[in-house]
Amino acid sequence: MFELLATDTVTKARLGRLTTPHGVIDTPVFMPVGTQASVKAMDPRELLESGTQIILGNTYHLHVRPGMEIIGAAGGLHRFMNWSLPILTDSGGFQVFSLAKIRKITEHGVEFRSHLDGSPLFLGPRESMQIQKGLGSDIAMVFDECPPAGSKPKEYQAAVERTLRWARECREQPRAPGQQVFGIVQGGTHPELRERCARELVAMQFDGYAVGGVSVGEPEPEMLRAIEMSEPHLPAAQPRYAMGLGTPAQMIQLISRGIDMFDCVLPTRVARNGTAYTHKGAYNAKAGYNKADFRPIEEGCQCYCCRHFTRAYIRHLLNVDEILGLRMLSVHNTHLYLTLMAEVRQHLRQGTFGEFARDYLAHYVPTKRVLAARDAER
Amino acid sequence: MFELLATDTVTKARLGRLTTPHGVIDTPVFMPVGTQASVKAMDPRELLESGTQIILGNTYHLHVRPGMEIIGAAGGLHRFMNWSLPILTDSGGFQVFSLAKIRKITEHGVEFRSHLDGSPLFLGPRESMQIQKGLGSDIAMVFDECPPAGSKPKEYQAAVERTLRWARECREQPRAPGQQVFGIVQGGTHPELRERCARELVAMQFDGYAVGGVSVGEPEPEMLRAIEMSEPHLPAAQPRYAMGLGTPAQMIQLISRGIDMFDCVLPTRVARNGTAYTHKGAYNAKAGYNKADFRPIEEGCQCYCCRHFTRAYIRHLLNVDEILGLRMLSVHNTHLYLTLMAEVRQHLRQGTFGEFARDYLAHYVPTKRVLAARDAER
Repeated sequence: MFELLATDTVTKARLGRLTTPHGVIDTPVFMPVGTQASVKAMDPRELLESGTQIILGNTYHLHVRPGMEIIGAAGGLHRFMNWSLPILTDSGGFQVFSLAKIRKITEHGVEFRSHLDGSPLFLGPRESMQIQKGLGSDIAMVFDECPPAGSKPKEYQAAVERTLRWARECREQPRAPGQQVFGIVQGGTHPELRERCARELVAMQFDGYAVGGVSVGEPEPEMLRAIEMSEPHLPAAQPRYAMGLGTPAQMIQLISRGIDMFDCVLPTRVARNGTAYTHKGAYNAKAGYNKADFRPIEEGCQCYCCRHFTRAYIRHLLNVDEILGLRMLSVHNTHLYLTLMAEVRQHLRQGTFGEFARDYLAHYVPTKRVLAARDAER
Repeated sequence: MFELLATDTVTKARLGRLTTPHGVIDTPVFMPVGTQASVKAMDPRELLESGTQIILGNTYHLHVRPGMEIIGAAGGLHRFMNWSLPILTDSGGFQVFSLAKIRKITEHGVEFRSHLDGSPLFLGPRESMQIQKGLGSDIAMVFDECPPAGSKPKEYQAAVERTLRWARECREQPRAPGQQVFGIVQGGTHPELRERCARELVAMQFDGYAVGGVSVGEPEPEMLRAIEMSEPHLPAAQPRYAMGLGTPAQMIQLISRGIDMFDCVLPTRVARNGTAYTHKGAYNAKAGYNKADFRPIEEGCQCYCCRHFTRAYIRHLLNVDEILGLRMLSVHNTHLYLTLMAEVRQHLRQGTFGEFARDYLAHYVPTKRVLAARDAER
């Protein structure tokens, strides 16, 4: 189902092709996040025009609202939201451990209360896989335990054991037709835990492998180390997915480290706060200095926003709380993420990725927070 | 600039064509409202797909934010917001009298404080026309005084006198190339004031005439009477515009009374509250009874929303506060308003409008508030 088409000679970057029931995905790929059956502020046409190949849906959120009875009656998530290309669903593990009030963790899963109305719910490997079967996603994720950044070694250890036991159980559950299942490597920044988790998962023979426990509040260098500790133990013949990441520059760094798939709320989330991504870093599109700037958000960009509107207009829309402002930044940011992936694939085809990545990172100005974390490492 | 192409034999309905610098408008026409240089939640492509021929912009709001310096530097409102079809701008009179804290009304205009930051501003016939010239709208409105519903006869009288004096002054101001100017009939529900105001304005020879002082909180029967008192005194050869109106059924009633142009925030405003218009009345698209209803918002509708999504999906989006929900209802409601106008024009061409209007009104269920006001009249 996954073909490795080329590997970069300078970095670990890979060009691949992943075949799913709803279509073929060229990798490296960025997956816009449609938590509640909608990529925030965007419609399917805008997603397709941006070059979206696959989106992500959230098992936990969809289970809470609208619930599986309604999605089941609609004929699955694709039909419910009218999205005909592939969908990857996460397992709900991350949300249960980060959003919900946990009442009890047992061998079979987690008893918790809904983050909305406090109603009691239970999610474990069986339940998660059953919901993901009902959603009919092309790629399902195993139900894992993801500890927050800065947990104790003992907690990471316990999370790895539980994640492995649950992965084994997920592996055996019924699936939707053609549905692939990916394992998730946990283990924090402990090399021996990452290695053990990866090796055990690989022995279970999943269709792909994700690195989890990243993008949980840790500084960038720690995130990169977690990836570097996990990747060497994953088979070349399967796709690798870094969960919840990242900025444009981080994706380039992660592709260089052998990652094929990404998902991140950043492009649409920061858009709603008035932040525009460019290939040279992000800027505040709402700031006063844009008020009479009649250039597009990013010069040369071919997205709907940049072909039609100026910074001055977008700044005005954001300033007066017009929905079109955040809509257009969502379109621009998502387009930028997806065209970056297309550019990366082109360079991998041509054998020029190493040079491209070096150049991209040299010109990209990260946020102050990322820069501070890098400095702290030196 | 206005051609009267046909008049209905049963009602006073008219088919017309209005030529402006940015294009030809077929009447009867509905003008979506783009108060702050954006029709709320919609982009220009969605407006064009809905059949929009002309939009409205608000002088008062645009004067406050972003201000004429920026719109001037952009080359006018069309270029600032990238809208190439006609634009009608109101004069700011309505907003000054309804939104702002008035400090003093003089012969030359109104001293008031911005509704945003309390900063002192002045708007009168000269200032309003100067701003509208700078905006470069195809149709400018005179600066009028619009008293709230239920004002005293003396107040309506004074407002008519002031409106006429200001109209005369507006008439003499410089205009943008090809810009038309419409007079506004005030006078509340006093037939003699409406007649006097209309006759005096007509003597000034404007390019078109609006009925103002409607949609200011009065019950529907009173609104219809205000139109009926004004219309007979307006020349057949010019377009007539009912300001701030109305529901689909009200537009049919007003077209039957000889009105050619409408603007209203209803289709997009109620969309943001989860209300969907249909040709048989409005309903709450957010209500629980839609949760497993897999029909479109309105069966047979050809808008983007109805061609792609179900009531169950839209209800879910509204229920979980996803922007796509209110976006899609804005698209649907606006499409419904505009296709209704296209249908009306087709019936006027065919000579079947009277029958169509009777049938439409017989099947349209107005809101409880409108029905109560009708009952109170009996």
